Amino acid sequence: MMNIRFEQAATLKPKPDIDTVKFGSTYSDYMFVMDYNVDKGWYDPRIVPFQNISLNPASIVLNYALEIFEGLKAYRTEDGRIQMFRVDENGKRMQNSAARMALPDLPYETFVEAVEALARVEKDWVPSKPNTSLYFRPVMMATNADLSLHGCTDCMFYIFCSPVGSYYPGGLKCNSILVEDEDVRAVRGGTGFAKCGGNYACAQRAANRANAKNYNDVLWLDGVERRYVEEVGGMNIMFKVGSTVMTPALLGSVLPGITRKSIVELLKEDGYTVEEKKIDINDVAKLLEEGKVDEVWGCGTAAVISPVGKLCIHGKDYVINNNEVGPLSRRLYDMLTGIQWGRVSDTHGWVFPID
Amino acid sequence: MMNIRFEQAATLKPKPDIDTVKFGSTYSDYMFVMDYNVDKGWYDPRIVPFQNISLNPASIVLNYALEIFEGLKAYRTEDGRIQMFRVDENGKRMQNSAARMALPDLPYETFVEAVEALARVEKDWVPSKPNTSLYFRPVMMATNADLSLHGCTDCMFYIFCSPVGSYYPGGLKCNSILVEDEDVRAVRGGTGFAKCGGNYACAQRAANRANAKNYNDVLWLDGVERRYVEEVGGMNIMFKVGSTVMTPALLGSVLPGITRKSIVELLKEDGYTVEEKKIDINDVAKLLEEGKVDEVWGCGTAAVISPVGKLCIHGKDYVINNNEVGPLSRRLYDMLTGIQWGRVSDTHGWVFPID
Ligand SMILES: Cc1ncc(COP(=O)(O)O)c(C=O)c1O
Ligand SMILES: Cc1ncc(COP(=O)(O)O)c(C=O)c1O
Repeated sequence: MMNIRFEQAATLKPKPDIDTVKFGSTYSDYMFVMDYNVDKGWYDPRIVPFQNISLNPASIVLNYALEIFEGLKAYRTEDGRIQMFRVDENGKRMQNSAARMALPDLPYETFVEAVEALARVEKDWVPSKPNTSLYFRPVMMATNADLSLHGCTDCMFYIFCSPVGSYYPGGLKCNSILVEDEDVRAVRGGTGFAKCGGNYACAQRAANRANAKNYNDVLWLDGVERRYVEEVGGMNIMFKVGSTVMTPALLGSVLPGITRKSIVELLKEDGYTVEEKKIDINDVAKLLEEGKVDEVWGCGTAAVISPVGKLCIHGKDYVINNNEVGPLSRRLYDMLTGIQWGRVSDTHGWVFPID
Repeated sequence: MMNIRFEQAATLKPKPDIDTVKFGSTYSDYMFVMDYNVDKGWYDPRIVPFQNISLNPASIVLNYALEIFEGLKAYRTEDGRIQMFRVDENGKRMQNSAARMALPDLPYETFVEAVEALARVEKDWVPSKPNTSLYFRPVMMATNADLSLHGCTDCMFYIFCSPVGSYYPGGLKCNSILVEDEDVRAVRGGTGFAKCGGNYACAQRAANRANAKNYNDVLWLDGVERRYVEEVGGMNIMFKVGSTVMTPALLGSVLPGITRKSIVELLKEDGYTVEEKKIDINDVAKLLEEGKVDEVWGCGTAAVISPVGKLCIHGKDYVINNNEVGPLSRRLYDMLTGIQWGRVSDTHGWVFPID
């Protein structure tokens, strides 16, 4: 157990209107911070008022992007309790990300402890309207100032919170997705499976181009053959074809989503055949042409389920399920949000109650 | 022309001992800073005391690594003048990097103006011992706080300076390089040609492993077939085979080095055949086995020329030119450093005098 120092804020901020708050632009009163030095290990865990971070212009994170992050949420149940979802999985993924990026190891138990401690302090920030939540953003970054590429000797781990409204204020809704043919996000041997900033920086241009063409997001193809489906900007992807659900296998270039993992379990329990495999985008196009794809959805912490109503492959738009939310998409959304917001009992041990 | 505001430092720092200073860990008195906002464009160019940067924990650079950088040097001639090298090329490369990363465009002329202005202020920091210099590190990063991946609306461009000793205090010396077989740095369609932090973050693990095995650096292979030579951690690479010099073509995954570009010109003037092409590492191994590779060197701003004496390919060490500095490596080093430090007259228009 950590001995977490607490530094009281002089004043607390007013809570924002949860119906109009923009994702990731309002922050709660406190943040968790812990430092690392190669000789000392992790030290000085503390919960302090949310504040700017002061960095040397030569710090490794600013020059060489040596940083990783996570994303998870705290949910308020109808009877007012606070709970989180599979926090240990986020902690384990951060350990894997750290190993890939040569950042120091933070045991996932410590990660969980830090998230829970901050969640307890920021309980009042967890909104109560249906499908709203408090988003937690853990970040680990190399802070030592050194241009010589000799790696991380000093590091900072911090977590801040941001209240988020309902992703679907008008109810579950379809998205349109553009398959990206020019830019590549990740390649085996690279950092695709790690949640590091570089994966998102390299994706910004394609996302901007897709948005300009009125698509909500990009679907990435593999970097080697440019034909195997990988994932959406911030979500994994799944295709329902009859009683089979296909999703790209985790071969190193795709982020192992915790929503993805949970859905795979739920689908198997429901009797679906789940195929985690290489999925050729041209086969997807063929199946779409033959009318064999019943539903497509993205899945991730932000939207839980993001039904895809339109998919543009090599310049051709395919409409899926009449651009309407399919029954399995809806069922998965209801099951997962049910567990997360405590409307459905947690038979998997996924819920982390915050008391 | 920019109207650069100047903020005087209260005290100036003592200059370090240039023989013992560590690269990139001592900074001069001033830095150049300029801000950007999507509505205002670039604004408030200023030269201010070197100082920490204060960032929102949710800023895009810290979360999504949206940043690029450059690296170049100021040299003191024997008669005390200050000059720089192909500053316009660094500015143009930064424009290309910005376009790839969806960061705002900074015209290269403005980049040059900023570098020159800071160089004039920091003249006294350019050391005078042979082969020492003042390193300039321009950085551009997205500073707006926003987790929603909607891109850069606010940005900061800054340049700081760091004095560097001679790369070869005991004279030009061979390095040993390990060909990396597991990790991948870049792939076509990715960000390899851009000088963005993510390329370096993903390279840290392999560099650490190579160092632990007593190699100085890693040689990267392409991400698609894992057999074409790309570049070294912070340098491009060249192979001399008879009167031909081969170097990997710039196909999107390799940084277009300014040293590389300059050497290609010098070699052609010298009558060498320069082949910019895909170079199969297995062909390199074969040529090495047949004793046909006369010299191998890395090239970049830091070391200028870094002769390779040992190259480990798929677990087998090859010794090149008896692990001694070859005549062409030395000649190129002398030619380039001659131009940079003003010992050789600049017939190419590469020199930027700072007066
Ligand atoms: C690139 C990417 N893929 C997939 C996911 C989904 O992961 P998770 O379900 O753990 O949120 C995310 C983010 O959350 C992501 O950023
Ligand atoms: C990855 C990489 N390749 C090549 C180079 C060489 O480029 P330049 O000659 O412009 O310094 C550098 C850095 O300087 C680099 O970081």
